[in-house]
Amino acid sequence: MTVVRVAKGHGTQNDFVVISDLVGDLDLTPELVRALCDRHAGIGADGVLRVVRAENHPEAAGQPASFFMDYRNADGSIAEMCGNGVRVFARWLAREGLIGDRASIATRGGVKAVQLHSDGNISVGMGAPVFLDGAVRVTVERSSVRALPAVALTLPNPHVVVELASRSTLADLDLSEPPVVDPPLPAGQNVEFIVRTDPRGLAMRVHERGVGETRSCGTGICAAVVAAAAADGLSTGDGSRWAVQAPGGRCWVTWSADNEIELCGPAVLVADIDLSTQWLAAAVG
Amino acid sequence: MTVVRVAKGHGTQNDFVVISDLVGDLDLTPELVRALCDRHAGIGADGVLRVVRAENHPEAAGQPASFFMDYRNADGSIAEMCGNGVRVFARWLAREGLIGDRASIATRGGVKAVQLHSDGNISVGMGAPVFLDGAVRVTVERSSVRALPAVALTLPNPHVVVELASRSTLADLDLSEPPVVDPPLPAGQNVEFIVRTDPRGLAMRVHERGVGETRSCGTGICAAVVAAAAADGLSTGDGSRWAVQAPGGRCWVTWSADNEIELCGPAVLVADIDLSTQWLAAAVG
Repeated sequence: MTVVRVAKGHGTQNDFVVISDLVGDLDLTPELVRALCDRHAGIGADGVLRVVRAENHPEAAGQPASFFMDYRNADGSIAEMCGNGVRVFARWLAREGLIGDRASIATRGGVKAVQLHSDGNISVGMGAPVFLDGAVRVTVERSSVRALPAVALTLPNPHVVVELASRSTLADLDLSEPPVVDPPLPAGQNVEFIVRTDPRGLAMRVHERGVGETRSCGTGICAAVVAAAAADGLSTGDGSRWAVQAPGGRCWVTWSADNEIELCGPAVLVADIDLSTQWLAAAVG
Repeated sequence: MTVVRVAKGHGTQNDFVVISDLVGDLDLTPELVRALCDRHAGIGADGVLRVVRAENHPEAAGQPASFFMDYRNADGSIAEMCGNGVRVFARWLAREGLIGDRASIATRGGVKAVQLHSDGNISVGMGAPVFLDGAVRVTVERSSVRALPAVALTLPNPHVVVELASRSTLADLDLSEPPVVDPPLPAGQNVEFIVRTDPRGLAMRVHERGVGETRSCGTGICAAVVAAAAADGLSTGDGSRWAVQAPGGRCWVTWSADNEIELCGPAVLVADIDLSTQWLAAAVG
């Protein structure tokens, strides 16, 4: 199969190229992913979401899911899951008439249940957070954040969450360099900075490992809520709904009493795109 | 008219959304330009090129040109001309069968003659450079570039060109902050840093006023050649062809004995894009 037509969408400004490959015969090379995600010479995106029917992909065959989300980072590497990406993935499936209001989507991070709501948002089950032992402190150069205590947890990717005292401290952070985490987590970490805006409301900025500051991070938004609830004395959720405002948009998170996280937020299809065959030939050599 | 289908292309990674509006009845608002150029929530580009037949645009009617290039910056502001954009504009016109190998394109910076070559490059007449009087010096923070002498000229936008001694000095420059120009030009300036790679070859990086470092700048590439030739003792061109390597690609510049600059370089159409009507409605309110 040759890629000709793709789509572009975003969830809280985490943006993706969606490629339909229902039969699963596209050779999605790292070169092609990088060319598509190139923001000046290509389409531009944080990653690529390849849509394959579950029975047609070896990593999903036999799982209780209708589709497999083959998620790639912009650098061409393979990734497990993306809380913003899976909503865009579901939005595209629904637009194509391939799913209804509910679906199970296989990912490299397990099967995820998604639900499309009438208000335009999409929720997805994100699994259970696991708190990591040991004290962690975070410092941000050129800021007043010096060795602040932080909460470390996995979801299942690693997060370190730091609560700040004021929105101005949050706004003034210079995240052009990675925050210094002491001790660092073994596989690195995303670092979320949060401020309370009301009893169940947070404002957040995030520095993603290997990427830099981003407009949003789905698991980071979930980790922020878990850390804030833990600071309130909860060791598991109470089912209340939190709102988290990231630079790229707002999401809602529910942490249930049986320790399951649900992320809810927008997913927007921006355009359908016919790639130039000449561009494509040059891009993939 | 409503925008539905647009194209995306780039010239040495200076990228543009092309909108066909041959009859000239599209209300291209700053909001729409910003939404299209948004690299996460929209399509993403350095600017928008609206294609209007010259007779259908008040700024071009009566001029010896077939089409008017209505060029907008990503922030929605109106711009005069763009040496990389006009090649993408011509490439699109040729692909649509609206021009042949040669055309005259009206811009806010005057009528430009373009020529499509069989090697895939496109050349465009860029007008005459004007040297500015007075000594100018450039400093780049966190680098060895301290008060280096520079050449100031307009084409007709303002440029300051600094020659460096080595490619490693060029590679190591931190252009995350604007270079300090002393004295600054009245309307600000683009600053080009160049290194000689052979007698008619330059490597270049550029900091564009109001933008930051970019992958390429058409008039900056021309200014770089003029400054290098001037340093060789020329006060006008000798018709020889220079090659300039910018981070986003290579262009060629000829400065003629009658003081006319011609810029030649690639122009690539990446894709044709059907915008989501829902996205569009939300984007422009």
